[in-house]
Amino acid sequence: MSRAYNFSAGPAAMPVEALEEAQRELVDYKGSGMSIMESSHRGKEYSEVHEECIANLKELVGVPEGYSVLFLHGGASMQFAMIPMNLLGEGQTADYVNSGAWATKAIKEAKNLGSVNIAADCAKDIPTRQPAADELSLTPGAAYLHLTSNETISGAQMKSFPEADAPLVCDMSSDILSRKIDVGRFGLIYAGAQKNLGPSGAAVVVIRDDLAERCPATVPSMFRYSTHIEKNSLFNTAPCFTIYMIMLVTRWLKKKGTENVYSQNVAKAGKLYNAIDSTDFYSATAVPEFRSDMNVTWRLPSEELEAEFVAEAAEAGLKGLKGHRSVGGIRASIYNAFPPEGVDALVSFMQDFESQNG
Amino acid sequence: MSRAYNFSAGPAAMPVEALEEAQRELVDYKGSGMSIMESSHRGKEYSEVHEECIANLKELVGVPEGYSVLFLHGGASMQFAMIPMNLLGEGQTADYVNSGAWATKAIKEAKNLGSVNIAADCAKDIPTRQPAADELSLTPGAAYLHLTSNETISGAQMKSFPEADAPLVCDMSSDILSRKIDVGRFGLIYAGAQKNLGPSGAAVVVIRDDLAERCPATVPSMFRYSTHIEKNSLFNTAPCFTIYMIMLVTRWLKKKGTENVYSQNVAKAGKLYNAIDSTDFYSATAVPEFRSDMNVTWRLPSEELEAEFVAEAAEAGLKGLKGHRSVGGIRASIYNAFPPEGVDALVSFMQDFESQNG
Repeated sequence: MSRAYNFSAGPAAMPVEALEEAQRELVDYKGSGMSIMESSHRGKEYSEVHEECIANLKELVGVPEGYSVLFLHGGASMQFAMIPMNLLGEGQTADYVNSGAWATKAIKEAKNLGSVNIAADCAKDIPTRQPAADELSLTPGAAYLHLTSNETISGAQMKSFPEADAPLVCDMSSDILSRKIDVGRFGLIYAGAQKNLGPSGAAVVVIRDDLAERCPATVPSMFRYSTHIEKNSLFNTAPCFTIYMIMLVTRWLKKKGTENVYSQNVAKAGKLYNAIDSTDFYSATAVPEFRSDMNVTWRLPSEELEAEFVAEAAEAGLKGLKGHRSVGGIRASIYNAFPPEGVDALVSFMQDFESQNG
Repeated sequence: MSRAYNFSAGPAAMPVEALEEAQRELVDYKGSGMSIMESSHRGKEYSEVHEECIANLKELVGVPEGYSVLFLHGGASMQFAMIPMNLLGEGQTADYVNSGAWATKAIKEAKNLGSVNIAADCAKDIPTRQPAADELSLTPGAAYLHLTSNETISGAQMKSFPEADAPLVCDMSSDILSRKIDVGRFGLIYAGAQKNLGPSGAAVVVIRDDLAERCPATVPSMFRYSTHIEKNSLFNTAPCFTIYMIMLVTRWLKKKGTENVYSQNVAKAGKLYNAIDSTDFYSATAVPEFRSDMNVTWRLPSEELEAEFVAEAAEAGLKGLKGHRSVGGIRASIYNAFPPEGVDALVSFMQDFESQNG
């Protein structure tokens, strides 16, 4: 088996050790005579997986007392609706930073449900960026301030988080567990699993418990954070296999050490941005101080060359480099599990491609 | 590897052929150099899985023109909310049959969102049952009539479906694809995947397309059937691996032939009910004409004997026989993938247990 370098934005590359472990025990989980997929979500085997996954995430993310870690169905897109349903009361306003395509989707759902103030808007800026802290126009008494820490499509990442009186609510789908964060500064953090955590099919939510009490009585049980806090994410049948895979990924991350992975992430991205900056043939799309360490985005002199670049790279085993269909260009998603050798291979391919086409 | 007989109600036994296929290609899907879990939900590999799964379900369930097959996050519990959010307009009433614990949950969510008429209530009847067609008190002009074709906890199954002017909306979580149904008689059918279709983490919805147009504009995008019809269940990142497993299960079912599986289901359940009826030591909990072919429920002379029965059976490799915590007793869930030999083994165990304890 030759393993491809998978630059996909999500679903994305996972640690091969986690995949191999899942493969070994897929048909017979620890001698139980059945797959973990076939095990009751209330039985001993799955319960241990569930609890280990929560404990590992609490440790790795650094979740303080007074917060819960939840596994919810539906990915980040469901959170776009659940957040205002739970936290944006009648007569209140929520502040949203519009930093790109994902923030725009979150804003659309919130506006449909309540009053929204756009605290800053740089969604369509070229080069792409996040707003500076002093650009934000915040609402006094806002229900919360919503941020998107890393815009997966544009490749613009918030490097520090603004101060605000309102609780910070942050979509960290594409950079959770990629760098150290201070959870105590946030009211709610959410992340679709399929980038840095595991396969698609679940969102991880870290919520300050008192915020869950805000939810109006008319919100269905399934969409209330309080339901899932109370039931430890087992209100209904959890997406068990997805959570099992997240558990294996967290085990891998514990073994590697977050500090090592975090510094490796900076090094991987740095190497790629250096390669881009070292020639006029490639041009990075994000403002330098907001360049994402997870999704590196750049352009070539023409769309034809970009298409050729993507096709030739795929043939060389460098897959998933096509930029998002809404913006074009090249995107290399290099999450925690993406190996440094893959970045080296890409840099070397870029040099060859330029020398043949530059 | 010795395979256990897994009588769990869901997550439940899956075809070992499907698990083995998933195991073989888990790390390297068809030579792509990556797992199907790591493949983009818009890439070639996953797209083929997605389309094959939809096509197989259409064929196997017998879905006519004018209906869509959707994969939604959140399981049946999310449908309990989505159905009234989409289909129960201001000033309308929905009819619900309360046939047991699952119908009760569906009713609770609908009542929170709109006007509900209980068309019949046999949720607490002992022996357990479903209502007869002539018991239903229907609302003229009702938005829909909600049914639960098989109550997984009580083991009571609707053997034929009532006539009504309103569209039939049916929770078939625990008996979809276990018997022939006439989809054209229904407006919407839904099923959590983790019983007869695959692992947990998705619901399959079959919806008559015109019903999706009823949804009020205030419902979030993620909770509108029209969103998922329009985007072919790829509005957001689908629970790809769950759908891949459903696809493998549908392939297995096509190979076995639905007629063979359907008659095998009747034979498996019949054998078990015969064993129960042949002695006073065991007593079936459901009225004979509503006995479920999927979840066979019965009692022993005492709760102590029931606990012993469950424990000794588990030691003998017959797992998951404990009745739901809310009702006690014994429950054998014998979905499509549960092998006939497992029923024979259980019958033989029951005879031994009675001769030692009767």
